[in-house]
Amino acid sequence: MADIHYPLRHRIRVRWAETDAQGIVFNGHYLTYFDVGVTEYWRAIGLPYPHTVEGTGVDLFAVRSAVDYHAPAHYDDELDVCARVAHMGNSSIRFEMALQRNGAHITSGELIYVCADPVARKSAPIPARLREAILGFEGAGAGPPATPA
Amino acid sequence: MADIHYPLRHRIRVRWAETDAQGIVFNGHYLTYFDVGVTEYWRAIGLPYPHTVEGTGVDLFAVRSAVDYHAPAHYDDELDVCARVAHMGNSSIRFEMALQRNGAHITSGELIYVCADPVARKSAPIPARLREAILGFEGAGAGPPATPA
Amino acid sequence: MADIHYPLRHRIRVRWAETDAQGIVFNGHYLTYFDVGVTEYWRAIGLPYPHTVEGTGVDLFAVRSAVDYHAPAHYDDELDVCARVAHMGNSSIRFEMALQRNGAHITSGELIYVCADPVARKSAPIPARLREAILGFEGAGAGPPATPA
Amino acid sequence: MADIHYPLRHRIRVRWAETDAQGIVFNGHYLTYFDVGVTEYWRAIGLPYPHTVEGTGVDLFAVRSAVDYHAPAHYDDELDVCARVAHMGNSSIRFEMALQRNGAHITSGELIYVCADPVARKSAPIPARLREAILGFEGAGAGPPATPA
Repeated sequence: MADIHYPLRHRIRVRWAETDAQGIVFNGHYLTYFDVGVTEYWRAIGLPYPHTVEGTGVDLFAVRSAVDYHAPAHYDDELDVCARVAHMGNSSIRFEMALQRNGAHITSGELIYVCADPVARKSAPIPARLREAILGFEGAGAGPPATPA
Repeated sequence: MADIHYPLRHRIRVRWAETDAQGIVFNGHYLTYFDVGVTEYWRAIGLPYPHTVEGTGVDLFAVRSAVDYHAPAHYDDELDVCARVAHMGNSSIRFEMALQRNGAHITSGELIYVCADPVARKSAPIPARLREAILGFEGAGAGPPATPA
Repeated sequence: MADIHYPLRHRIRVRWAETDAQGIVFNGHYLTYFDVGVTEYWRAIGLPYPHTVEGTGVDLFAVRSAVDYHAPAHYDDELDVCARVAHMGNSSIRFEMALQRNGAHITSGELIYVCADPVARKSAPIPARLREAILGFEGAGAGPPATPA
Repeated sequence: MADIHYPLRHRIRVRWAETDAQGIVFNGHYLTYFDVGVTEYWRAIGLPYPHTVEGTGVDLFAVRSAVDYHAPAHYDDELDVCARVAHMGNSSIRFEMALQRNGAHITSGELIYVCADPVARKSAPIPARLREAILGFEGAGAGPPATPA
């Protein structure tokens, strides 16, 4: 897991309001952190949410989230929200997410979104410009530079 | 303050997620509790928010909140959210709010809303049906029954 | 899934503060709802958290959560938080969770906790009184009515 | 109000989870933003909370908060949390707070804390090192630049 390359890393700091009476971050807040990571992912690929792409006409809806809690985070900790798109289907996008502190995993997990018509809420294909922007960003970050022939 | 009559009382229970690392409810969450009280106030006067009154065409926007913290609340405490409308202007409504535990004040405060056009965000008069419903509810709770002649 | 029996059902109402700019409940808040369900589960089995059992000396830490989002919830919706313990290991407890509106699934998911020493954070066996209380509660709800002799 | 000098300015970005169904930041979340500002204030004066000052033996408890809402904030807005200590009593510290977007006020308000013994919860004098650090930080920021001789 520590070997996974995440093209998106975004530094946050744990707020007092996010701790609970055990003195650690409440388990539900990690989904807020993950969501911040996805916001920054869209920005990084050049299509900040809500996507201002002419003619897309689709919105994104969460269909699944999962969090594995490896170690607690505390007030004022600096954490890196890490994100990569591990899979795209016809209409779905699966993010692999992690929270790291000094490179060690605090939580890991996934978020799956589907593209859908915001009114009818019927699934719709991932707009081409969104798909291409993701592939370009993941490819640039994940692989070695292409060797020129 | 203990003598104020609040026509709206609504019981809530402190959630684990609302506590902080001091072991008490984080100060900002009291505004969420107050907001729950206002939701229940609208229900109690028969105009649940968003107000389904034909022809009102106005929405409510918070313009001021204040909270005085008298004693901490803890996980699993049962609290009464108390609300009364203390003043109505042409377009503004001032709520006096309190959180009580076994009748003792935990917090007290106020919330001021203005009626406004939701698009132009210009203030607008309180719709007559809303004003009358508030007056009826406050009067019924606040005053002694009128003595018949 | 609709056939699963949940011995714990607890009614909540969606707060305004829990909606987001899509007009639906933000995906992270479902973990807060699930947590409320677990709080009520402990109360229902007679061991309110933090467990006031003499000699247990253990606390519970979340190690995994997962949520499947089937349909959005909206402001002021009344939802039932449903919980059952689907599995107990030596030190872990797995809850199957659901949010229902009029019997239809809004979300379903799971929460896994481990019993652990709160200082050393080393896993510890589920205290016997906690295990027995869970088995009693699940058995009473889950099984067929006893056939009278 | 725009003329007030705030020695502490800290940039945040509005999270999706902080918006509500009106499409704007929920009014209660501004207290979380203010709290982030106070955290950064303690860091800026060299005494990060919880204050690691030997021999202080006091904690800080909120006794009052107030927020005036001048304009709504939206998803992904960059906001500056601004803080200054406007008054110190024997045991109380009053912060004047503001949220600004491009220099324009979104909200303004105050937060009052009292120093108190964390066990007895009795008020206690502001520790000398905390008082001096605040005075030094406010003075350095508030005053005119020293005229070189």
